[in-house]
Amino acid sequence: MFLSLGEIMLRFCPGDRPLRAATQFTFSEGGGEYNVARALSRCFGHKSGVVTSLVDNELGHLVRHLVEGSGVDTSNILWQDFDGIGKEVRNPLYFAERGFGYRSPKAVMDRGHSAPSQMSVKDVDWKMLFEGGEVKWFHTGGIFAGLSESSAEVAEAAMSAARDAGVHVSYDPNFRSSLWHSRGGSSSAAELNRKLAIYADTLFGVAPLLHPSPPSSTPDGISALMHETTLAFPQLKAIVVGRRTVHSASSHDYAASSWLNGEIFHAEGYQRIDVLDRIGSGDAFAAGYISSTIEGLDPIKSLQMGCAAAALTMSTPGDAVLVSRQDVEQLAQPNQLGEVR
Amino acid sequence: MFLSLGEIMLRFCPGDRPLRAATQFTFSEGGGEYNVARALSRCFGHKSGVVTSLVDNELGHLVRHLVEGSGVDTSNILWQDFDGIGKEVRNPLYFAERGFGYRSPKAVMDRGHSAPSQMSVKDVDWKMLFEGGEVKWFHTGGIFAGLSESSAEVAEAAMSAARDAGVHVSYDPNFRSSLWHSRGGSSSAAELNRKLAIYADTLFGVAPLLHPSPPSSTPDGISALMHETTLAFPQLKAIVVGRRTVHSASSHDYAASSWLNGEIFHAEGYQRIDVLDRIGSGDAFAAGYISSTIEGLDPIKSLQMGCAAAALTMSTPGDAVLVSRQDVEQLAQPNQLGEVR
Amino acid sequence: MFLSLGEIMLRFCPGDRPLRAATQFTFSEGGGEYNVARALSRCFGHKSGVVTSLVDNELGHLVRHLVEGSGVDTSNILWQDFDGIGKEVRNPLYFAERGFGYRSPKAVMDRGHSAPSQMSVKDVDWKMLFEGGEVKWFHTGGIFAGLSESSAEVAEAAMSAARDAGVHVSYDPNFRSSLWHSRGGSSSAAELNRKLAIYADTLFGVAPLLHPSPPSSTPDGISALMHETTLAFPQLKAIVVGRRTVHSASSHDYAASSWLNGEIFHAEGYQRIDVLDRIGSGDAFAAGYISSTIEGLDPIKSLQMGCAAAALTMSTPGDAVLVSRQDVEQLAQPNQLGEVR
Amino acid sequence: MFLSLGEIMLRFCPGDRPLRAATQFTFSEGGGEYNVARALSRCFGHKSGVVTSLVDNELGHLVRHLVEGSGVDTSNILWQDFDGIGKEVRNPLYFAERGFGYRSPKAVMDRGHSAPSQMSVKDVDWKMLFEGGEVKWFHTGGIFAGLSESSAEVAEAAMSAARDAGVHVSYDPNFRSSLWHSRGGSSSAAELNRKLAIYADTLFGVAPLLHPSPPSSTPDGISALMHETTLAFPQLKAIVVGRRTVHSASSHDYAASSWLNGEIFHAEGYQRIDVLDRIGSGDAFAAGYISSTIEGLDPIKSLQMGCAAAALTMSTPGDAVLVSRQDVEQLAQPNQLGEVR
Amino acid sequence: MFLSLGEIMLRFCPGDRPLRAATQFTFSEGGGEYNVARALSRCFGHKSGVVTSLVDNELGHLVRHLVEGSGVDTSNILWQDFDGIGKEVRNPLYFAERGFGYRSPKAVMDRGHSAPSQMSVKDVDWKMLFEGGEVKWFHTGGIFAGLSESSAEVAEAAMSAARDAGVHVSYDPNFRSSLWHSRGGSSSAAELNRKLAIYADTLFGVAPLLHPSPPSSTPDGISALMHETTLAFPQLKAIVVGRRTVHSASSHDYAASSWLNGEIFHAEGYQRIDVLDRIGSGDAFAAGYISSTIEGLDPIKSLQMGCAAAALTMSTPGDAVLVSRQDVEQLAQPNQLGEVR
Amino acid sequence: MFLSLGEIMLRFCPGDRPLRAATQFTFSEGGGEYNVARALSRCFGHKSGVVTSLVDNELGHLVRHLVEGSGVDTSNILWQDFDGIGKEVRNPLYFAERGFGYRSPKAVMDRGHSAPSQMSVKDVDWKMLFEGGEVKWFHTGGIFAGLSESSAEVAEAAMSAARDAGVHVSYDPNFRSSLWHSRGGSSSAAELNRKLAIYADTLFGVAPLLHPSPPSSTPDGISALMHETTLAFPQLKAIVVGRRTVHSASSHDYAASSWLNGEIFHAEGYQRIDVLDRIGSGDAFAAGYISSTIEGLDPIKSLQMGCAAAALTMSTPGDAVLVSRQDVEQLAQPNQLGEVR
Repeated sequence: MFLSLGEIMLRFCPGDRPLRAATQFTFSEGGGEYNVARALSRCFGHKSGVVTSLVDNELGHLVRHLVEGSGVDTSNILWQDFDGIGKEVRNPLYFAERGFGYRSPKAVMDRGHSAPSQMSVKDVDWKMLFEGGEVKWFHTGGIFAGLSESSAEVAEAAMSAARDAGVHVSYDPNFRSSLWHSRGGSSSAAELNRKLAIYADTLFGVAPLLHPSPPSSTPDGISALMHETTLAFPQLKAIVVGRRTVHSASSHDYAASSWLNGEIFHAEGYQRIDVLDRIGSGDAFAAGYISSTIEGLDPIKSLQMGCAAAALTMSTPGDAVLVSRQDVEQLAQPNQLGEVR
Repeated sequence: MFLSLGEIMLRFCPGDRPLRAATQFTFSEGGGEYNVARALSRCFGHKSGVVTSLVDNELGHLVRHLVEGSGVDTSNILWQDFDGIGKEVRNPLYFAERGFGYRSPKAVMDRGHSAPSQMSVKDVDWKMLFEGGEVKWFHTGGIFAGLSESSAEVAEAAMSAARDAGVHVSYDPNFRSSLWHSRGGSSSAAELNRKLAIYADTLFGVAPLLHPSPPSSTPDGISALMHETTLAFPQLKAIVVGRRTVHSASSHDYAASSWLNGEIFHAEGYQRIDVLDRIGSGDAFAAGYISSTIEGLDPIKSLQMGCAAAALTMSTPGDAVLVSRQDVEQLAQPNQLGEVR
Repeated sequence: MFLSLGEIMLRFCPGDRPLRAATQFTFSEGGGEYNVARALSRCFGHKSGVVTSLVDNELGHLVRHLVEGSGVDTSNILWQDFDGIGKEVRNPLYFAERGFGYRSPKAVMDRGHSAPSQMSVKDVDWKMLFEGGEVKWFHTGGIFAGLSESSAEVAEAAMSAARDAGVHVSYDPNFRSSLWHSRGGSSSAAELNRKLAIYADTLFGVAPLLHPSPPSSTPDGISALMHETTLAFPQLKAIVVGRRTVHSASSHDYAASSWLNGEIFHAEGYQRIDVLDRIGSGDAFAAGYISSTIEGLDPIKSLQMGCAAAALTMSTPGDAVLVSRQDVEQLAQPNQLGEVR
Repeated sequence: MFLSLGEIMLRFCPGDRPLRAATQFTFSEGGGEYNVARALSRCFGHKSGVVTSLVDNELGHLVRHLVEGSGVDTSNILWQDFDGIGKEVRNPLYFAERGFGYRSPKAVMDRGHSAPSQMSVKDVDWKMLFEGGEVKWFHTGGIFAGLSESSAEVAEAAMSAARDAGVHVSYDPNFRSSLWHSRGGSSSAAELNRKLAIYADTLFGVAPLLHPSPPSSTPDGISALMHETTLAFPQLKAIVVGRRTVHSASSHDYAASSWLNGEIFHAEGYQRIDVLDRIGSGDAFAAGYISSTIEGLDPIKSLQMGCAAAALTMSTPGDAVLVSRQDVEQLAQPNQLGEVR
Repeated sequence: MFLSLGEIMLRFCPGDRPLRAATQFTFSEGGGEYNVARALSRCFGHKSGVVTSLVDNELGHLVRHLVEGSGVDTSNILWQDFDGIGKEVRNPLYFAERGFGYRSPKAVMDRGHSAPSQMSVKDVDWKMLFEGGEVKWFHTGGIFAGLSESSAEVAEAAMSAARDAGVHVSYDPNFRSSLWHSRGGSSSAAELNRKLAIYADTLFGVAPLLHPSPPSSTPDGISALMHETTLAFPQLKAIVVGRRTVHSASSHDYAASSWLNGEIFHAEGYQRIDVLDRIGSGDAFAAGYISSTIEGLDPIKSLQMGCAAAALTMSTPGDAVLVSRQDVEQLAQPNQLGEVR
Repeated sequence: MFLSLGEIMLRFCPGDRPLRAATQFTFSEGGGEYNVARALSRCFGHKSGVVTSLVDNELGHLVRHLVEGSGVDTSNILWQDFDGIGKEVRNPLYFAERGFGYRSPKAVMDRGHSAPSQMSVKDVDWKMLFEGGEVKWFHTGGIFAGLSESSAEVAEAAMSAARDAGVHVSYDPNFRSSLWHSRGGSSSAAELNRKLAIYADTLFGVAPLLHPSPPSSTPDGISALMHETTLAFPQLKAIVVGRRTVHSASSHDYAASSWLNGEIFHAEGYQRIDVLDRIGSGDAFAAGYISSTIEGLDPIKSLQMGCAAAALTMSTPGDAVLVSRQDVEQLAQPNQLGEVR
């Protein structure tokens, strides 16, 4: 079982209109770390679960139904009492427009006092959770860890316990500037990421970590940065990086690179991807990679699977991987790489 | 000009489904005190404005467009900086299902740390606001005052300044138990209402005030309670009370009573009103009454206009008075009272 | 074949909201005289056609597709050239909200300079149209005839030619006050109806005709009025009248009476009909009656079929008879009359 | 764990329009036996699962996501290969309009060659399924058993194995005339029900069983029939019957009776329930009863909980119990019975 | 009159979402052979009709209304009795997602036991149908013929009778692998096509016919293949082939070639067509070509009209040609060819 | 305050379908001259108002709410009495499909007898309106002036009075061929534009004016034409021209040029703009330019701001500038020019 620790927000989408000119909202549930678990279950057919916290009101149960609808185990959700107005603790929300052409995507976060940000190290008995041996891979990242002082502690306790139990640990040093606004920005985030990276077997991304922002985003630059990172964190077994080029809100390239026990691999990915909604495509990449790696695919094919999942996720509304495993596999076939079908 | 002080929330509605089973959301802006101002402008054609606070992000501007779309002046909105995640200050939200038959309406509030709850007495120069003479009637109520300690102070400062400037002051001792959950419940709310009622010329409702809950809701009981209230607050010129009987979520009666300078009036209102969405109908009543009183209609006709506005507001989705002034006047005609057309 | 002469408007519906607060519009095509032809084809399976006029632009063809979608023959539509802005001639529109409980239905007509109102007697060779013998029943009414001076002439020419050709002629002295606003009101409409009634075999309704408004709407009053009418128009073979009682916008009764060659019949119809949208239910009644009469059902059963069609049409959105013939027959079974199932 | 054996269809709903006049479809998953399991999980918080069969194509996985979204275990779904056109085996569908007032609800079944109807006794190792002791209650009924000869055998094998393993077995002798159209009608269905009833501890309903149709539907008649039934099936511990009175498509009464080890109980239920969509309310009744009985509520309170669940399910679109457990409990409080709130 | 013989399916579309993640469905009616008739009527203004079969239930009549709404004659629809569950005979359905960028379009067929597949040679008196002389052009194809053994016989009987009556016969050797899954694949389909091609005057497409799949799709390859085909079927007067290049699900090229009595013509068509929904564009091509040919346009202009109809059909949702004849003519103007406007 | 004189139409949009195949309509309010005022208020935060006329019915008030919702002052709307059918005076409508790829956008105007076209010079006291000094900039154009003889007079009276009062006057010689269909076409329109241009300080566009159509649309051609224009109208201070290149309905370039007191400026604008809905983008350009010029930005930056506003307006549905001022500013940053982000 794959287990993720993260915040699940209810995302409100105004369709093809800007947020400030919305006329109605569709919604879905999402959040960086959770998205990986969801994709592993919903698309790739692996068992997965999530550790998170929700407030016990109608919105919390709406989120629960959505999570269950993707086959993700919800038995490790920590339910907190509702205070009636959302002052002590809230279900986190965000509002996101998807962008179009020259109009960039945009998100308004409303996650202050979120249930996950109020979690404390005492809330979960991580040792017990991992000792059964059911969890094979544990994943969390810089978004959850960056929610609050206590969520950082929760992340550290979880990663440490997982490592102790021999569970494979992955970490995504994801950065949301809004979370670090009054807490030191990307430098502080990098510091936290460095504190947590020592527990990881696999890293998804390399910044902010040694540097507050990546010194280069070219394949060579990323290769160098991966190398530098492994020197700093010698316990790492893998670094996996998706490389995105944004031509416009409606057209991206997506390629990927990895460092595996000293060796570096590059996958061409896809060019001029028509983008309907980019949110969640990086998480789709991670899920595609993890699924393939678990199943024993070779390094480049695993990266390809990740890129294909990312590309297909950009072709659908919302941040979930809505397509089937067969769709991903078909796009990732060798003769599909590097050309627009 | 009619000026209201209150919180404007963005309301999300799941249509004919329960909240926890929502598939999409429509939305509108609303809030008890504001609703009165909106109805006076949108339906009855009086100039009105609102004093409130919003966060300066996409959601705040979405609300602003909605408020302007009903013709309510937004120049007294206090814009607060967005912290990027909604931790310091937020635009208040709520999620409400409208009920149907045996299924009662339900609301989930998400108004903790709302911009209006963070307002302080220094934020508005009430003296200057009222001294120009443009504002003829000022309205606020127990929802806004109950948001926080500071909003109670803001309400008091505003009412006091309005009274000093000779502006007609009305107050609705509205009670939301969720706001008083950890602050003493309806007894504390009644205490605050008593503190503020001394500045009022007109009261909309009589509880919680002298009593935490109304000792009776029969016409006679309400009459006695109105009498008792005027003894406690001798400066009062009017008490106006809508009397609702709930047969099911889909069928209400709505009648009304008033005390005006010692005299008591009753209007029959309407029986077996088909209810699509009840929220906001009490505010519609207040607006219908105020509009009619300002225009010099007699006391019973003014109550009738209020009841008609309430009945029609229950016939439309959302909490705004969406019908026209002519619709209200037509329903309030004498031969329309007391019978289902 | 049943042939109707009338105006077909594009109707815009704001769903459960008032028109002035619409957020989007669904639409359908409709118009009193046409509705009868549509119901005969779509629901009852009789061949029918319509004589009308449309402007040859995208809206006109949208209407054409809708008419064809109900199986009504469109080969007698007179297409007029579009002037690019709708100054000379327009496709007629109307906007209708359906009401709810105490909120009455409401319509805003936008039919000035409509294509049918611009038709002239030279536009159709009625003699040729009727002489083939394909048309068995011809129907028109006071709405089409009231559109303009020339439409009145067209109606007269058509009725006269149909009568000469031995076609059964029915006329509905329907009255729309908006059409007679500046042309003498219901008195003038009654005068026109008297002018045209002399060509009719069957009348649907009795006012405005001898009187500008019906002197009574009780069954006895209607019976007396039918009798009086047959004295004035001795060529009449039948008068058929639906009797509606409005309890609220959401609850009607519908019964019916007829005079057939000197004999009077009453059908109980249905009480406390739940009304979603009342528009078109009177036309559904006429169609249900005509279909049954053509097929040789007895007088009371024919009225019952009309009442059942009316009741079912009130249960669906829009003004068309959307249910199946079997649905109407089932509701019209004797044991279904006079009781709410 | 509660385990249900049944067919899960994809239901298409045209909203407030008749099927033949649909403009778009919403959908949900449903089926008599499954609905009970879903309600137990989604609303009442009991673990539940379903044994069924789906075709392994996009529609099958759409259904799976819907089932999982209500928290029902899907690990016992038997996936059958898709033949590309739905000739050998299909995912079952149905199209249902919900009715309104005098317009009755209507359903068009499209379940021929459905995956569940193709199941055979060899498909599931029932002994193994029940021997672990995880399943405490097993439920199936006359709809599943009536699908085909082989589904009847599957039902019998399952009930027999459950009974052998000491699992509580309930059976709903539900009848769909369309399933028995060419196979002997309700007489044959009664015969099959008699064959299966011998394995049941609890029966939901009493017809068709000893009689092709219930000889009476009054409380006394039902009591007598329950008594007669227990004589024929002496192993029965309980018979539970919901009693529905249909005033119109939009207004029902719902009460209930039970026979428990020789004693008879009646619950008043609810009168004049406003009905939005009746489908699934009988299954909601069963789930409310089962949940309460499992939790040890007394017989009348258990029936009340069932009636409340049924009443609330009629207030929402679709056939699922969409409300919360708290909603059901609140409506089922003693002072709520027998009066319209 | 143009007459088509084919299967009409109800197509369900999940909008911009994958099928397995659908939230609602719009629908339209469609099917290869029928689409040509529909386009000829709806867009190009030629009289057309369809020979098909539907089940006499609500879905069948929904389809009928849709067909009539495009002006296609429905008097030759063979209505089959509904068995209540869709076991003997069904209205065929399919579910199709339209694709986007790297995400390919996808369809799930649900046409097993469809009414058309159950048609037999005795169902239609083809001789009588054609001898009146009203039908000038008869069209069918490999989809209908491939439905079943009996539909193949029906196609042969129809084509043979049409040929005997001097009606122009066209045939589209369209191939759906799902139909031939268990019946020999494209080799068997080619065999059937060869059996039927001997009755054709015009062929739309050249594979599978002499070869199970086209040996080449370049203009030269197609030219050679057309030549080879005319040698094998010397009675042919015309072969017309649309040539599509797929860059991605959202970007196609469409060009065309024809062989007419020994001469070969090529039209440039359109490059980099923005594709919203590709389904039906090949049928639009055929209709545009037929309409132009009937009206006497020269060979290249006829191909251009077909390409323009195809290009515009890809720009709209669903598989119908929704644009006007003027739109097609305008795009097909010489100066519009070969450049993106 | 910026004041605009123009017609406000209610625009109906069929989404991604052609008009003649519409299934529902969304709507918004729009009109060339008004759009500029709306963008200045809604997006750029300048006070603005509109002089127009509406009919006092539900549609008129629907439009009023929409106008107010963008913050545009409605106190100068001239309300005309409704005649009940729209014969004397109507609220103007139009129906517009947005196009896609090779499918061009299309509009059907329904503005005959519109309220603005019925305005006369006596309706507004322009002198009084301008003398207060509140209005700093007055804008109108060839669409309003071209509505009717009397609207041309109104435009002249307004421009003349504004000029006399020292208000900056801008004029957009916009041309709608449908308005000049029977009145001499673009030659007559050019004549009217020449009559009005003598009152302008700023011209938006240069044709039809000296020439019925622009002799060239290259930058050099436009430069020459601007120069020629200033010789003919020596009072001009500025000519501002947006230069659009249409690759397909879904892909445009937008650049701009200006002549300011003898000097010519060019801005690169944006290439390969993904277009969702082009309508209103030219007006967005004008508003972006005016806002920037008022605020003192340099000539090229002002053009850039206009181009950015145009580009972003093409990325949203409808004709309003729905994005925020910050969005425009961000896109207009120097490093954003001339490259697709």
